[in-house]
Amino acid sequence: MNSFISLLLFLLPIISLFITTLVSGSPLKIPRLSPTGGTFVHGNYFANDQPKALSALDQNDFETFYYTQTLDHFNFRPDSFTTFQQRYLINSKYWGGSNVSAPILAYLGAEESIDTDLASIGFLSENANQFQALQIFIEHRYYGKSIPFGSREEALKNAGTIGYFNSAQAIADYAEILIHVKKQLHAEDSPVIVIGGSYGGMLASWFRLKYPHVAVGALASSAPILYFDNIIPPEKGYYSIVTKDFQEASETCYQTIKKSWSEIDEIASKHGGLSILSKKFHTCSLLNNSSELKDYLQSVYAQAAQYDRPPRYPVTVVCGGIDGASSGNDTLSKIFAGLVAYRGNRSCYVNQPGSLSETDIGWRWQTCSDMVIPISISNDTMFQPDPYDLEVHIKSCKAKYGVPPRPRWATTYFGGHDIKLALHRFASNIIFSNGLRDPYSSGGVLEDISRTVVAVHTKNGSHCMDILRANHTTDPGWLVEQRKTEVHIIKGWLVKYYADLHAFK
Amino acid sequence: MNSFISLLLFLLPIISLFITTLVSGSPLKIPRLSPTGGTFVHGNYFANDQPKALSALDQNDFETFYYTQTLDHFNFRPDSFTTFQQRYLINSKYWGGSNVSAPILAYLGAEESIDTDLASIGFLSENANQFQALQIFIEHRYYGKSIPFGSREEALKNAGTIGYFNSAQAIADYAEILIHVKKQLHAEDSPVIVIGGSYGGMLASWFRLKYPHVAVGALASSAPILYFDNIIPPEKGYYSIVTKDFQEASETCYQTIKKSWSEIDEIASKHGGLSILSKKFHTCSLLNNSSELKDYLQSVYAQAAQYDRPPRYPVTVVCGGIDGASSGNDTLSKIFAGLVAYRGNRSCYVNQPGSLSETDIGWRWQTCSDMVIPISISNDTMFQPDPYDLEVHIKSCKAKYGVPPRPRWATTYFGGHDIKLALHRFASNIIFSNGLRDPYSSGGVLEDISRTVVAVHTKNGSHCMDILRANHTTDPGWLVEQRKTEVHIIKGWLVKYYADLHAFK
Repeated sequence: MNSFISLLLFLLPIISLFITTLVSGSPLKIPRLSPTGGTFVHGNYFANDQPKALSALDQNDFETFYYTQTLDHFNFRPDSFTTFQQRYLINSKYWGGSNVSAPILAYLGAEESIDTDLASIGFLSENANQFQALQIFIEHRYYGKSIPFGSREEALKNAGTIGYFNSAQAIADYAEILIHVKKQLHAEDSPVIVIGGSYGGMLASWFRLKYPHVAVGALASSAPILYFDNIIPPEKGYYSIVTKDFQEASETCYQTIKKSWSEIDEIASKHGGLSILSKKFHTCSLLNNSSELKDYLQSVYAQAAQYDRPPRYPVTVVCGGIDGASSGNDTLSKIFAGLVAYRGNRSCYVNQPGSLSETDIGWRWQTCSDMVIPISISNDTMFQPDPYDLEVHIKSCKAKYGVPPRPRWATTYFGGHDIKLALHRFASNIIFSNGLRDPYSSGGVLEDISRTVVAVHTKNGSHCMDILRANHTTDPGWLVEQRKTEVHIIKGWLVKYYADLHAFK
Repeated sequence: MNSFISLLLFLLPIISLFITTLVSGSPLKIPRLSPTGGTFVHGNYFANDQPKALSALDQNDFETFYYTQTLDHFNFRPDSFTTFQQRYLINSKYWGGSNVSAPILAYLGAEESIDTDLASIGFLSENANQFQALQIFIEHRYYGKSIPFGSREEALKNAGTIGYFNSAQAIADYAEILIHVKKQLHAEDSPVIVIGGSYGGMLASWFRLKYPHVAVGALASSAPILYFDNIIPPEKGYYSIVTKDFQEASETCYQTIKKSWSEIDEIASKHGGLSILSKKFHTCSLLNNSSELKDYLQSVYAQAAQYDRPPRYPVTVVCGGIDGASSGNDTLSKIFAGLVAYRGNRSCYVNQPGSLSETDIGWRWQTCSDMVIPISISNDTMFQPDPYDLEVHIKSCKAKYGVPPRPRWATTYFGGHDIKLALHRFASNIIFSNGLRDPYSSGGVLEDISRTVVAVHTKNGSHCMDILRANHTTDPGWLVEQRKTEVHIIKGWLVKYYADLHAFK
């Protein structure tokens, strides 16, 4: 089992849920889709890497609300009318008001508590003033405090309750809340710009496509909307970019990693080999098989590449460790040196005890329902090849939840195939922003679809950098530029919107 | 109770379902949304009014298929994975084939068996040759032979089973089937034009909005997509146009009808009055109250206006009867003469025994779920005022089905408010066609939204005339012209589509 359990296990717990049956046998090969990297980056280890947190003062400007949300928008069965309390936060400090139809910047929550986003997303707070915009952050159903069925335990209990947890329902939630808020504020004419990153970026672009009457535009940061149903060829996926990132950082580092896997296997196959590896990598508990180690290392490289940000640039840090080890060292000692450089000096690595975060648990369900992202590792990467096997995924989801995923539903509902052909003369006002060092950019829209559905990408950017809170001391020029470009484009949408408002209403 | 039971009762049964609880206390104030008028027009009485039926030869060119359809596209609960057999028919006689990416004309079924549409809809068969198009007719879930849960009885049993019956699910069905058919035929690049009338016209326009990656354009005939959530003012609704139609046909006829209601009430209020009225109108059974008669007459005028087609023009027929009665006759004798002129000589009228058609039963549910169309009768019509009362409607739906309708869901999901502002720079390739004599045109899009989302209407047209099978001997010039315009517009979409296909793929 080439699984990512090891990654999951060492993640710090956000919530204390120990669902043993969910932990065992997980086929979670899908790196976290998260703007911030969640606990992985938010841990204690690299506090300096973090974007500035929202100051307490700014946090105080947000008021928390709960909306009585419909559990099931798409049916009229008795159960469909069940409601739950969905959290959203509003900051009207800079809002120009409804009398001038001042805009609304709406952050669409993704697979985590909205608190996490509030602390790390900067695009809204940093631009609210110049847009005279209302800021709203909406939490995604089944995360944070927006849990149906009274408790997380009940909500995740079985397919009967978790089955309402999917992206189509989530964007319908957002539509209801945005319509409600506009009505409450008598701001029916205020244009809404939706913003999201990663999975939330997909939601933002899909929201604009499905609810153009609610949002006039979307900023979809690092949204891999083409990573479904084999739209992108398996050999051009996530791990190809991880590989490219490492190879560009250091050819020797790349070569070392590339040959490490067979060396691990070789040692593991020997009598007492797992014990040797456990010692060498200071594992927190004895390795049961070589995959525990390999999956862990693979996830470290993937995360380093996905969140390869200034000022520290994790890929450079890992390669610094690997390349910096004394030349006399063997390959695996170099690999360990890379790990230590990245993770810092710790009492142990790999097989760290811990529980799953709500994101881990939630996202795993989502990959077993509508978010079936087929990530392959092809044989031209620095990893051991591992082609995606849909049948295995389906089987494992069925075993876990009792229901199978729907791998083709995302492209049926949201499209994706031949996207330029489909949307060139349809849709408008979407920015697909990407950093090309982000492995998920392989599933992103990297080419303009039309004059107003545009791709904004940076050669050196990683995952969701443009929407994170700016760290003015370390932001590179190209990132500052990218953000300016995005603001400029959105301003253009608003100018046209107000002209239309004047002309048509 | 101002109800339309009388109308329902005299409709010929399509299916033999006697759901007594559903029949009693119906608040069905919503005239049938149907391209053809269903049994009302399809009955024996006005065979000459009917568009030419599809010849047996043409019918033979259609092959019937069943698709294993997902009951619930939007959830992943165990029940959601229930499937049913959904019927569709394909005619490939004129199709240019997948190697030239020849187009597909897809008729989206509405609230009736697809057999009914196949026999009456002409737009596809009459244009397939010049478009070299494949024709496909898809039946709407819960109608005809596309019934979930094994039987109509089970499917309609309670809110638990009927609750999956709504427009969002229906268009998701269409998306799945069209994607499936294109794949089967290796026709992924064949552009699909969706066509629908009345409720089906709404579905066609919504399909283009929600699934632009599946259909490149939509012809939405007589689709009252603005008849939701008070987008149109109550005083400019359905019955205002019925009134205008009658007044334009004959001022005296209009006046006679206008004063008839109070005369009916006056007689009814007298001792033995209902018996007098029953005799005067040759009712099939003794009237229980004056509403039975008034609702019946109201529905006759509504239907006459909605399907006011050549060669007979029912409004003219009714007014001919009313105005033609000897001048010595009292008002109600004139009204009866209008009725006889319209319905022909029959043994009795009003309170006709009979059962509800599947359309009556299905559409009544739909008006109690997502299709909440608030039809008021304002006091400047020729009818007695009858303002729409949403609360009464909700109560009655709850009593009938155990679940309330969602009156705001249609505009939340599909939009409608400020439609030009929302769609002027979004969306493309939709024709909203209307006949201005059609009472439902009051809820239609009568103004161009953009260069490619356009309104095509005719002053003298009624409901869905443009897509019905042409009756060449009696089609007026303006109708021939309207159809030509629509074909011309669709050809323009296809030219652009093929240019894009060449450029982007």
